[in-house]
Amino acid sequence: MQIAILLYDRFTTLDAVGPYDTLSRIPGAETVFVGERTGTYRNDVGSLGMVADAPLSDVTAPDILVVPGGPGPLALMEDGPLHEWLRAVDARTTWTTSVCTGSLILGAAGLLKGRRATSHWAALDQLPGLGAEPTGERVVFDGKYVTAAGVSSGIDMGLALAGRIAGDEVAQAIQLGIEYDPRPPYDAGSPDKAPAEITAMIREGRFPLAGEE
Amino acid sequence: MQIAILLYDRFTTLDAVGPYDTLSRIPGAETVFVGERTGTYRNDVGSLGMVADAPLSDVTAPDILVVPGGPGPLALMEDGPLHEWLRAVDARTTWTTSVCTGSLILGAAGLLKGRRATSHWAALDQLPGLGAEPTGERVVFDGKYVTAAGVSSGIDMGLALAGRIAGDEVAQAIQLGIEYDPRPPYDAGSPDKAPAEITAMIREGRFPLAGEE
Repeated sequence: MQIAILLYDRFTTLDAVGPYDTLSRIPGAETVFVGERTGTYRNDVGSLGMVADAPLSDVTAPDILVVPGGPGPLALMEDGPLHEWLRAVDARTTWTTSVCTGSLILGAAGLLKGRRATSHWAALDQLPGLGAEPTGERVVFDGKYVTAAGVSSGIDMGLALAGRIAGDEVAQAIQLGIEYDPRPPYDAGSPDKAPAEITAMIREGRFPLAGEE
Repeated sequence: MQIAILLYDRFTTLDAVGPYDTLSRIPGAETVFVGERTGTYRNDVGSLGMVADAPLSDVTAPDILVVPGGPGPLALMEDGPLHEWLRAVDARTTWTTSVCTGSLILGAAGLLKGRRATSHWAALDQLPGLGAEPTGERVVFDGKYVTAAGVSSGIDMGLALAGRIAGDEVAQAIQLGIEYDPRPPYDAGSPDKAPAEITAMIREGRFPLAGEE
């Protein structure tokens, strides 16, 4: 079973690593980080480099495709070789997935038309323009398309998908292995729980979550 | 404020990325990935490469030190240049932290003597031999030493530490930015919650969480 995780400039690291550190632990999984070029991609903050080992042309039939999000997708909304690759591999995947604004890339490539999907809470309103129906769920399954909400939700998606693929016991073993028994010190992880002023700060870009472009 | 995150062969990615994707978003933070050599380090599964931009000698006075865990620490328990560096920078840090079995490295370097600390649940019994007192808490503060339990607990540690450093509002903004409103699809994230057979499988190494060395 091959898992392909897309890298690009200004991706959000945890978007990629949540699904990675769950799905890659399924027995028999082989994971490859893939990019339009091979080599190091810098993340949204700028201080982290992660390596794409394979060019798009080397990955033609992954079983699972994972598209992370971040501020980077804003530069990836135009049709071109990346979208062509996404459509070509999607035609052969068992599961096509995204985390956070990765769903905007899938949508821009035409893969979410008429499907229920999610994204980072602050980007949900962009889904209808791409033909998708936004939901407020954290992880959305619509056929083989699995989209997760913002950043950290990729861990929940990875475990849910591991259960579908390999069974509940394998998914539970992975959860226990990564000791995923979350205890957030605050209850501010969604816009309906966070103080309104903090939600407004994020929505209006007044809190610099990412580095300068 | 400089944050130094240590990389080494066979680190667990989420151990590093949980603290990274929370702490690096504190306004004014500057994060550097540091290693005994610069360049790409492969993680525990083997399919992911992350880049250390600075050698140990370039990072002499970080405000925060983060030591991730994984199977890699087993090779890092002997005294030598890495332990010397850990002791030297610890003498100047405001916070010295670890995730998962990263606490075993800190302990082996002599930094947790007489302190309350934690580690991955399956490694807790190694702490007393290093002079530390194990606790069952997910995130343990003992003075400036902050240790977190297995893998995913680094997210909780990062948010708790962000709150201490920059205040509750900043920590909440980061939590909302990464949409950390966890909904694990199973309740198997700690050994007292997971089915006993699954706990035994992990403890006895019968579930291959990492790649072959």
